[in-house]
Amino acid sequence: MAKTTTLKEFESIFPKLTEDILDDAKQHNLPEAFVEWYKASLIANTVGGKCNRGMSVPDSVSMILEAPLSEQQYFEAAALGWMTELLQAFFLVSDDIMDSSITRRGQPCWYRQPHVGMVAINDAFLLEASIYNLLKRYFRKHPSYIDLVELFHEASFKTELGQLCDLLTAPEDKVDLNNFSMDKYRFIVIYKTAYYSFYLPVALALYHQNIATPKNLKQAEQILIPLGEYFQIQDDYLDNFGLPEHIGKIGTDILDNKCSWLVNQALAICTPEQRKILEENYGQKDSKKEAEVKKLYDELKLEQIYQEYEEKRVGEIRSMIADVDESEGLKKTIFESFLKKIYKRSK
Amino acid sequence: MAKTTTLKEFESIFPKLTEDILDDAKQHNLPEAFVEWYKASLIANTVGGKCNRGMSVPDSVSMILEAPLSEQQYFEAAALGWMTELLQAFFLVSDDIMDSSITRRGQPCWYRQPHVGMVAINDAFLLEASIYNLLKRYFRKHPSYIDLVELFHEASFKTELGQLCDLLTAPEDKVDLNNFSMDKYRFIVIYKTAYYSFYLPVALALYHQNIATPKNLKQAEQILIPLGEYFQIQDDYLDNFGLPEHIGKIGTDILDNKCSWLVNQALAICTPEQRKILEENYGQKDSKKEAEVKKLYDELKLEQIYQEYEEKRVGEIRSMIADVDESEGLKKTIFESFLKKIYKRSK
Repeated sequence: MAKTTTLKEFESIFPKLTEDILDDAKQHNLPEAFVEWYKASLIANTVGGKCNRGMSVPDSVSMILEAPLSEQQYFEAAALGWMTELLQAFFLVSDDIMDSSITRRGQPCWYRQPHVGMVAINDAFLLEASIYNLLKRYFRKHPSYIDLVELFHEASFKTELGQLCDLLTAPEDKVDLNNFSMDKYRFIVIYKTAYYSFYLPVALALYHQNIATPKNLKQAEQILIPLGEYFQIQDDYLDNFGLPEHIGKIGTDILDNKCSWLVNQALAICTPEQRKILEENYGQKDSKKEAEVKKLYDELKLEQIYQEYEEKRVGEIRSMIADVDESEGLKKTIFESFLKKIYKRSK
Repeated sequence: MAKTTTLKEFESIFPKLTEDILDDAKQHNLPEAFVEWYKASLIANTVGGKCNRGMSVPDSVSMILEAPLSEQQYFEAAALGWMTELLQAFFLVSDDIMDSSITRRGQPCWYRQPHVGMVAINDAFLLEASIYNLLKRYFRKHPSYIDLVELFHEASFKTELGQLCDLLTAPEDKVDLNNFSMDKYRFIVIYKTAYYSFYLPVALALYHQNIATPKNLKQAEQILIPLGEYFQIQDDYLDNFGLPEHIGKIGTDILDNKCSWLVNQALAICTPEQRKILEENYGQKDSKKEAEVKKLYDELKLEQIYQEYEEKRVGEIRSMIADVDESEGLKKTIFESFLKKIYKRSK
């Protein structure tokens, strides 16, 4: 029987990895004060999240093996999981600068912490470099070493293409709803989020277990990308329709001119008069204007449209999961477990 | 006989590589407007420099072969050369943000160009990603493919460690000469500059020609790192003692609080009274204070100390070159050619 990891177990691996990463820096004779800086950046930016991405690597490996993992298996799978968290840390540190964000996980963003500032850009690079240092340390002898490296390159490239599209579609300082479209929305979501958050951890588990056959990788991608898209659409839905006490924050997508699923959906079905309301009120730091948009979302019955979308999409995903060919070692349970965590979530 | 490349020949390869890089983006269905953005960033940030680093790859390959390169050999070596230029572009775009620089190669820095701003950070990531996309495209079948990938990872990591040390040693907003030391200076120079500018291109040439034996790599590193260090010290010397009409700019290291060889040299030999002059005048945007430091540099005879250093160091490097063991295909001419370009340069 597969066994699911806990955040506590997963986090217990990180100190060893931190030590390894800093050991690489020390072997290069980095002066001690800067080793401490690197350590502070690693801890502040990598630990403290929910680690859903990272934990799904050992969980997927356990489901592939249909057994709990040995200590060694768990360590390796969790190390790969932490590499996805490092990749995310690299992106979050830099995204926060690009988006002029204020806080992250309840703390000031790294670039806003005392004495950090734009040094954060180089810190982001060092978070990225840690991935390849860890891969080399632990997986150099693995038959899929180069594939693991290429997978991280590909995940990075895709995420960066998604980020480019996102940044240029919804610049902070210029609201233009003509920039938005469902096509661009899908591109951004798939590239910026779905690939590294959903496909990457499962692909890592497949490589780790030497069952990353073209067929298995393709099946995983064909289910996990739609699943990641659904996840992000749900996130956009919850930003407006979720309860702040559930989602742990007050949604600001309307105020922030976000290229959200809701505004794209609204644009797709609104009358010219309703579009005018959107144009006059969307993406401005004014809660009265935000309320106008929220009112329009209600008139357009976006909550109901979302729920219909969700039922339809989940049905399609379930049917794709049912059709998975397990003959090369891929397991339906991997996808079922992802779906179970997401479906009808309120936070 | 080996043949030296020209900037024109080297630049003639870049359009094909740009096409390849953009082709990767197009294959991911990146919307056309963003492909154009990527192209603009590639051209603005990669082309237009002297390309000394990049050109030294085909030059080194030609010296290894002791023959002019075939069209195919030249293309591959130049492609590797352009990857070192892409690595440099990745660093320059981000360094300019971290240093609040104003211009680069006579143009506003990329992040200061219209509508770019902090999107430049993601553009820097895409420049980095281009390296690995090109490596995969052209060298996936090369017996040293994984070594080439790891070499770029290692060069990136080292440069980032050097940049970390540089940024934290000489923060723009806080002058503290106690932060400086010759040890830190050497670390910064070797890591931030020498490794990727001098060692990387030659190591690439060795891998390309399948003669990157441990012995050859070690010999190359042992000569090229001191050579790169000498180059940077010379750069720091020219910033103050060079003629603006030769170096093409007016040096600003004193004004900019740079951890330069000259100030470290001065700190090492000055009296307490002279140190006071440095402390009162270094690193401030005030040309009268700058003149005080320049006067002190003259009193301390730094020009003469530099010239003695240069003669001694060049003698040592020459002797190391003379001792190179060519039995595994490495050629002394590679190092001689580097040294010839650098020794006694005035620009």
